[in-house]
Amino acid sequence: MRFTTEQRLDDGILERGFTLDEVPGILWTPGSASAPVPLILLGHPPLGLRTMYPRLLARARQCAVEGFAAATIELPGSGDRPRWAAAEQARADLRRVLEAGEPVSDEIIDALVLPLVDRAVPEWQAALDALLSLPDISGPIGYSGGLISIGIRLAVVEPRIVAAGLFAGSFVPRTMFEEARQVTIPLHVLLQWDDEGNDRQAALDLFDAFGSREKTLHANMGGHTGVPHFAGEDAAGFFRRHLR
Amino acid sequence: MRFTTEQRLDDGILERGFTLDEVPGILWTPGSASAPVPLILLGHPPLGLRTMYPRLLARARQCAVEGFAAATIELPGSGDRPRWAAAEQARADLRRVLEAGEPVSDEIIDALVLPLVDRAVPEWQAALDALLSLPDISGPIGYSGGLISIGIRLAVVEPRIVAAGLFAGSFVPRTMFEEARQVTIPLHVLLQWDDEGNDRQAALDLFDAFGSREKTLHANMGGHTGVPHFAGEDAAGFFRRHLR
Repeated sequence: MRFTTEQRLDDGILERGFTLDEVPGILWTPGSASAPVPLILLGHPPLGLRTMYPRLLARARQCAVEGFAAATIELPGSGDRPRWAAAEQARADLRRVLEAGEPVSDEIIDALVLPLVDRAVPEWQAALDALLSLPDISGPIGYSGGLISIGIRLAVVEPRIVAAGLFAGSFVPRTMFEEARQVTIPLHVLLQWDDEGNDRQAALDLFDAFGSREKTLHANMGGHTGVPHFAGEDAAGFFRRHLR
Repeated sequence: MRFTTEQRLDDGILERGFTLDEVPGILWTPGSASAPVPLILLGHPPLGLRTMYPRLLARARQCAVEGFAAATIELPGSGDRPRWAAAEQARADLRRVLEAGEPVSDEIIDALVLPLVDRAVPEWQAALDALLSLPDISGPIGYSGGLISIGIRLAVVEPRIVAAGLFAGSFVPRTMFEEARQVTIPLHVLLQWDDEGNDRQAALDLFDAFGSREKTLHANMGGHTGVPHFAGEDAAGFFRRHLR
């Protein structure tokens, strides 16, 4: 892991850009920290870190308020990473059926999500190895955000992640429902009830499938990107309970 | 309104029993209050105040922590109030079909809930009149708990109630779905996801029906009576936002 940029933000947070095996990422550590702190991995949809930066920064600030570090990495085929023809084809196929008003088939969802999960999850795990080797970060580790299928796979395969806050706002392959049954860590699932681009019933079915004994669904109004501020406060309470 | 008992609890809360037109009730006011405080009406199922007392007191203590008073009244036909033959018949009918493993018909649910709502809601409103005349209570007013149909009706007809936390854990007559569409105040709805005695789909449909622009559904595990402690914290945050 090589740090490429470093800046101190106005609220004292230290923001460092890094690369790890050609994968760019960002680490935010709270300014007040005197001892190593827990870490929340900030998941996001494949829109590129530059596009997602304002929202990621806002979430990192919420983490810092709780005394947690936050980190994220660029997804395969996104942002400045090498183009990935298969992923672009899958996104083009999705756009085509959405524009035609056709139903989104399982084949399209699988092609869109499964290769991304398969490639991204080992990269998140490698980032976790590197981040935990830093003196600033101790654990425990949480995962927060979309892409929900990446969160599910990580919750199953990565024992260092002890709690996950997931955003039920994206297409979920049918096979991920089977993986969801294997999840046992505490979950906090956000659902935008009036998200027109999202299949609400699928999100409810997925919540039902999770094997975790402690799982909570928070459904709010406000559309896909209109998650209310208080939903962030409730999620912060979840991570406070499980990472402190 | 006539106070019948008064005791100071260990955490300084003043607990007063009262009767109002033969309806018994309890008022809890926080010990620390130096000015009139907001009030949360504590709804409950028709099991009698004596049976419900430990749970009501625990909720009143949570209100006091936020600086809110809390009050509740006995439901018609419950506790020490005169027996109500029609209500007892409806409950006997319900028990009979549940024990026989038969589906609970709309007729049984209507007979169980609608007369209770019709009689209880004006009593809650009269209690509110009396409570607001006390120097300790200023408002704003919230309603919290079951019976959800009483909460729905109150939210529609009682403009002094500005926010409601509802427990989606009881039978809801079909006509209440129409009333739910008329609700516009902020709502915080609790659903026990694995509550076997509850119709989860009906609870989700009811949440969908509410007309409120701000409505939040919190679904948790733990069975009908196993609402996790953190769900209470999230509900406290809801009332903090709307009553302070």
